[in-house]
Amino acid sequence: MKAAIFSGPRAVNAGERPDPVIQEPTDAVVRVVLGCVCGSDLWYYRGESPHAAGSIGHEFIGVVEQAGADVRGIVPGDLVVAPFIYSDMSCPHCLNGSTISCPSGGGFGNGTTDGGQGEAVRVPLAGATLVPVPGSGHPDAVLRSLLALSDVMSTGHHAAVVAGVKKGDTVAVVGDGAVGLCAVLACARLGAERIIALSRHPGRQRVARELGATDIIAARGDEATQAVLDLTGGIGADAALECAGTGQSISTAFAVARPGSTVGIVGVPHGQVPFTETFFRNTGWRGGPAPARIYIPELLGDVLDGTINPGLVFDFETDLDHVAAAYQAMDERRAIKSLIRVGAA
Amino acid sequence: MKAAIFSGPRAVNAGERPDPVIQEPTDAVVRVVLGCVCGSDLWYYRGESPHAAGSIGHEFIGVVEQAGADVRGIVPGDLVVAPFIYSDMSCPHCLNGSTISCPSGGGFGNGTTDGGQGEAVRVPLAGATLVPVPGSGHPDAVLRSLLALSDVMSTGHHAAVVAGVKKGDTVAVVGDGAVGLCAVLACARLGAERIIALSRHPGRQRVARELGATDIIAARGDEATQAVLDLTGGIGADAALECAGTGQSISTAFAVARPGSTVGIVGVPHGQVPFTETFFRNTGWRGGPAPARIYIPELLGDVLDGTINPGLVFDFETDLDHVAAAYQAMDERRAIKSLIRVGAA
Repeated sequence: MKAAIFSGPRAVNAGERPDPVIQEPTDAVVRVVLGCVCGSDLWYYRGESPHAAGSIGHEFIGVVEQAGADVRGIVPGDLVVAPFIYSDMSCPHCLNGSTISCPSGGGFGNGTTDGGQGEAVRVPLAGATLVPVPGSGHPDAVLRSLLALSDVMSTGHHAAVVAGVKKGDTVAVVGDGAVGLCAVLACARLGAERIIALSRHPGRQRVARELGATDIIAARGDEATQAVLDLTGGIGADAALECAGTGQSISTAFAVARPGSTVGIVGVPHGQVPFTETFFRNTGWRGGPAPARIYIPELLGDVLDGTINPGLVFDFETDLDHVAAAYQAMDERRAIKSLIRVGAA
Repeated sequence: MKAAIFSGPRAVNAGERPDPVIQEPTDAVVRVVLGCVCGSDLWYYRGESPHAAGSIGHEFIGVVEQAGADVRGIVPGDLVVAPFIYSDMSCPHCLNGSTISCPSGGGFGNGTTDGGQGEAVRVPLAGATLVPVPGSGHPDAVLRSLLALSDVMSTGHHAAVVAGVKKGDTVAVVGDGAVGLCAVLACARLGAERIIALSRHPGRQRVARELGATDIIAARGDEATQAVLDLTGGIGADAALECAGTGQSISTAFAVARPGSTVGIVGVPHGQVPFTETFFRNTGWRGGPAPARIYIPELLGDVLDGTINPGLVFDFETDLDHVAAAYQAMDERRAIKSLIRVGAA
């Protein structure tokens, strides 16, 4: 089959991989409909984090082609959303909502396992992992939003959930990538009254507004902190969501969070928490990789009935043959998030 | 009046300070009944943190002697519990439960302001700050427990609250000082089913058991972590409470907390959080100085009806003339916490 192949920094191109087959009775083979490029794929692309040569991509929706004998809950022909890791949904961690810590779990597109940027994927623990989508003939805009549930929307939602965002809150969202924009949408969905998005990029500001941002701050660092304090009468935000992971964005998130609040962190940390300083303000943090499998069923309903439209974060589109362009567009910040159209739904 | 005077490391002795008088119409003067020495006073005593020469001590219960014209809610003769800082209870931070961030607030016994280790204290914002104790003629054991609400019990409770401890939980408490022991009691009060106390000190282990610990681990570091994992079937604790503040205790608390849980941190941090590692396990933290004023009314009822007995942490007692001995006993770890008997209730 055709699939994106990572062969080193700045080298992701269409290539060939073996057609996936059922290996365990709990496997399914899914024919990919839509895949995409994650912000974290860019670290590999830029050589900032190591990645094994081979398959890449961990976000996809697709149609079940074949299901092993022990797969329950999905059947061939089902349109399914794949969370960005697979998990068994029966271990103590999964039952506690921490699918990312499932000892039987694992990732897609790690060089060896099939990636979401390819024509098909063998999905282990498929009955537990894949979430079937009710109905048929969904319009393209819905499919794009379903794809966003695979990672970015679930991740933005996670930031809001762990930070305890609730009706009437004022929230500051730090980071204007696809995850930050989805976090804006998640806050709106949870009833936040005022959603302050930090973004210096006009195109991303527009998407942030469309997804629910009520205020935009086009500044960074101390200037951004002061702007949030000015907007909140000197109090700070009821919650701050850190969706970038740089040293500066982490500092800003803690600085704008009011005393006693929780910073929701989903940007993989490339900086350190200002521990002692935040301790004396009672400003803690929660977060990490999102348990997407836990969130997808809840978010799916809102996508299908049109309540949320996270697919708006995809502003560049191509196919597997041109996957290199998908990476280039994000690397050059011409695209928020690149969609890869693979097959028919 | 007589009061403990800090004159430098290892030099806290009884001395003279001016009798407190009402300076603002919101002040009250409280005659101290019981005061005590805090673990944090030991840092000053040991020269590990700076402290201005003069008054010291921030925990006390006492009887209102005089109340300014604008003081509401308390009258002369009332027995009152003082939280370890004063606050106005009307600013946005106080109304949000973050009394420690009150811009009008401040501390007792900082060298200049009257300390709890003295015969009397001028309490600013007295009507908002002091919590009156209903009834009269309370036995000494009750008075000792009321004194514990001033800081250590409220702080132990804060650790449990921010970590989300709930009925049926398994909790690991790291740190066997007075705060850690009160955290054990707070967990028991909140319905935790299994309370694992890390302590290598036989006397403290006994108090921990008396306050509700179901398991004791007499180890540190990796060995302690492994012991908690063994006790929890490899899963980790539903919540971990960090009540010591050393680099090792912080690491241990994060290592024993199960994925997705929150570490409650109340030990003033003298180490760094293992940020990236805890991020990938979704193990965050919340905490800081406790908003004691918020918790005291709730805990007070349980002290008065005998449900909780945090006064058990006081295992050394003296008077102001011998305050040096109160510090020495804690410095040499002969005492968990030293009580200073000052006046009649």
